Amino acid sequence: MSTATAAAPASRYDIDGLLKAIGDVPVTTDMQRVRLRSRDYFWYSPVLNKQLHGKSADIVATPRNEEDVIRVAAACAKLRIPLTVRGAATGNYGQAVPLEGGVLLDLTSMTKIEWQKPGIVRCEPGLKMNDLDTLTRPQGWEIRMHPSTKRMATIGGFVGGGSGGIGSINYGGLREPGNIVATRVVTCEEKPRIIELRADAAQKVNRTYGTTGIITALEMPLAPALPWIDMIVTFDDFEEAVKFSYEVALADGIVKKLITPMIWPIPQHFNALKAHCPEGKHVVFCMVAEPSVESFKNVLGTRGMVTYEQPHDDSPGKEPLYEYTWNHTTLQWLKQDRTITYLQCLFPHDRVLESVKQMTEMFPDEVLPHLEFIRFGGRITCSALPIVRYTTEERLNEIISLHEDNGVFIANPHVYTLEDGTRHKSTGADVLGMKADVDPYGLLNPGKMRTYKPVKS
Amino acid sequence: MSTATAAAPASRYDIDGLLKAIGDVPVTTDMQRVRLRSRDYFWYSPVLNKQLHGKSADIVATPRNEEDVIRVAAACAKLRIPLTVRGAATGNYGQAVPLEGGVLLDLTSMTKIEWQKPGIVRCEPGLKMNDLDTLTRPQGWEIRMHPSTKRMATIGGFVGGGSGGIGSINYGGLREPGNIVATRVVTCEEKPRIIELRADAAQKVNRTYGTTGIITALEMPLAPALPWIDMIVTFDDFEEAVKFSYEVALADGIVKKLITPMIWPIPQHFNALKAHCPEGKHVVFCMVAEPSVESFKNVLGTRGMVTYEQPHDDSPGKEPLYEYTWNHTTLQWLKQDRTITYLQCLFPHDRVLESVKQMTEMFPDEVLPHLEFIRFGGRITCSALPIVRYTTEERLNEIISLHEDNGVFIANPHVYTLEDGTRHKSTGADVLGMKADVDPYGLLNPGKMRTYKPVKS
Repeated sequence: MSTATAAAPASRYDIDGLLKAIGDVPVTTDMQRVRLRSRDYFWYSPVLNKQLHGKSADIVATPRNEEDVIRVAAACAKLRIPLTVRGAATGNYGQAVPLEGGVLLDLTSMTKIEWQKPGIVRCEPGLKMNDLDTLTRPQGWEIRMHPSTKRMATIGGFVGGGSGGIGSINYGGLREPGNIVATRVVTCEEKPRIIELRADAAQKVNRTYGTTGIITALEMPLAPALPWIDMIVTFDDFEEAVKFSYEVALADGIVKKLITPMIWPIPQHFNALKAHCPEGKHVVFCMVAEPSVESFKNVLGTRGMVTYEQPHDDSPGKEPLYEYTWNHTTLQWLKQDRTITYLQCLFPHDRVLESVKQMTEMFPDEVLPHLEFIRFGGRITCSALPIVRYTTEERLNEIISLHEDNGVFIANPHVYTLEDGTRHKSTGADVLGMKADVDPYGLLNPGKMRTYKPVKS
Repeated sequence: MSTATAAAPASRYDIDGLLKAIGDVPVTTDMQRVRLRSRDYFWYSPVLNKQLHGKSADIVATPRNEEDVIRVAAACAKLRIPLTVRGAATGNYGQAVPLEGGVLLDLTSMTKIEWQKPGIVRCEPGLKMNDLDTLTRPQGWEIRMHPSTKRMATIGGFVGGGSGGIGSINYGGLREPGNIVATRVVTCEEKPRIIELRADAAQKVNRTYGTTGIITALEMPLAPALPWIDMIVTFDDFEEAVKFSYEVALADGIVKKLITPMIWPIPQHFNALKAHCPEGKHVVFCMVAEPSVESFKNVLGTRGMVTYEQPHDDSPGKEPLYEYTWNHTTLQWLKQDRTITYLQCLFPHDRVLESVKQMTEMFPDEVLPHLEFIRFGGRITCSALPIVRYTTEERLNEIISLHEDNGVFIANPHVYTLEDGTRHKSTGADVLGMKADVDPYGLLNPGKMRTYKPVKS
């Protein structure tokens, strides 16, 4: 259904030509709605908020299927119009923000499941992760890992712009072999090709923000759907909370999906959970498989107190515990106070506790630890999205450097290019090669892969 | 049903008094059968074979239920008759061999499942692990880990005399928190008590060979039953086989249950698999979840060749791949050649590949590496049951020392006491305390816990 109710304003691109070329592909040209949908959650970062403010597409296209995607991609290639893909736009790095206008390709109408087998599903990219779970749970399966935005976010957006989350304590991140079985992408050329990328090759579209092809199908491995229990444990001492969390993380007999220690005063901002987060207490938020709850409490002993224990439920109308973890932690605080921001850290696996302690002590009351235990490269370690009391960009960069100088890797969430968010500030040769193949004119989300020079003009 | 067809021979114990006291508890007194059932698989060790040869109970009792167990325990306590528990007696350290005669308590008739819930089951100890799986698989669950003797062995025997096995790459060993939820034991006293041990406390009967109480019920956590694929991969180079195995072990996105690299000529002794184990090739035996097979092969690349790939099936009449792994590897060789024996090694998790290489090179053609990747204390590492070309006990001990000197822990399978099989050659205070509480006269499997001095006589 087209919602082209307002005339498109003046654009440097041939939007009329585009509309003609794409026929009945649903579009939105109403500029207020186009601007609104051109934003994601980049405003978590005061730095990105300045840089990305006001960036907008000229038009939103909402393909119903792969044929529609092909029509839009062909028209964009022919008319040299930028094309930026979005799912639910729940990302935080401006992944879905069109820097140079053009078409915003909203894939949220492509929600079909192609097939399900035990432990694996093939679906379209616009399927919300929560809907995916709803469709696979009756067969005993659920998505292996998801961001805290699972109830809104799409599977394609997660693969294209995310990295891991709830469940990564078991499976690591999306980048680990086996966590994306296959992707199908459409190229941005006059005659778009469809490319099936399997295993390693599928990684070429993982967290590339839609710069390396338009995902039209995903084959994702699933995890057994277990009866999860949402639990809050409170502690007098933060170091003890972290130690306990690490012990649970290492206890392979205790099945869990989430281990999130957070220092007081972070829980002060969890309004709906106030009763379970007493004043001054540090907390660990967990998801534990029901048969492991007794062993979990046994490992805890008398070190902390369980203040909340409820069967996990993230169906509509419910608020699951994970919406206070990962980057929802930051959001909960931001709801009350916009002066803070956050970082994304990865602690060294061979000195987790020491390193966390060192960083906690280095920035008292300025960088407030919020940790997420995960597997990374087969090792249990700890990532973090600490709350940072923001003063200046200079100080923020200083904090980042002090982490890096002490062996804590920072995936900087205050940059919007792919390269600047990585450790080596570069794009791999395989990804650059893929980019040249699928996007010769450099039209896919331009400006995000800054090291790419278009091979054609 | 009593099978007391032959008169009991002269015994230093009051067997007649016992028979009177235990009423209709089924017993066997036929000495040929008693002697046969007093053996386990200790003969894998030439050292134990000498030491344990000819050891036998005076009588076998086969309780039908906990009440029967209590009657036998009471009678043994009253008459000061040793009581040694056995399941299927598939152990290799003489766990089930009565050193001082007396009663052999065969629990294989106690096979009831008390209840099942999602992810957890409570059952009697004599249930065979394969039967347990058959009863839980329809609900989507299977045992978390099992020895290679799963098709014969009982769950109680595994807990009482085992440590880990197939599945330990996911859950670690039985000793990890959460892998035994609870045990119920009967004490050996004139008035036996029933004690429920939960969580940590349940560990007091783990691998104590029945010295710390008679297990009458077990609450065991289960794993989701996945569609497993048995796979053999062959390699020209053993170091490459180990490297690949380690990569798969660390790949958290690839779901597996078994990773077993074995050097040539070990596979030479795998008669039924000759077609899949070419002359001169090193092998890795694996169980991989079906949805992960493609990623598994992707990680393999062209380094090795998949020569066998079949859906896993360990139902009666089938021979699953795991019966060529763990201590079945040793058995396959022993079937053809009794001159070899084996060791049990644990490599340091922070230098797995280096340490394996060092040990492989230290004993060329004398200690043949057969590795088993596992999780241990939350870390991926590698255990091993290498084939040892046996010459003398002195040389065997020298090989053990050379491993230990180089940071490889040896769980010596050539000793029959609990203490000598451990790292510190001791029994923990909690276990000794438990022993004093449940077995004041020292009648439970006497001689196996050598540091225990009976508190009553």
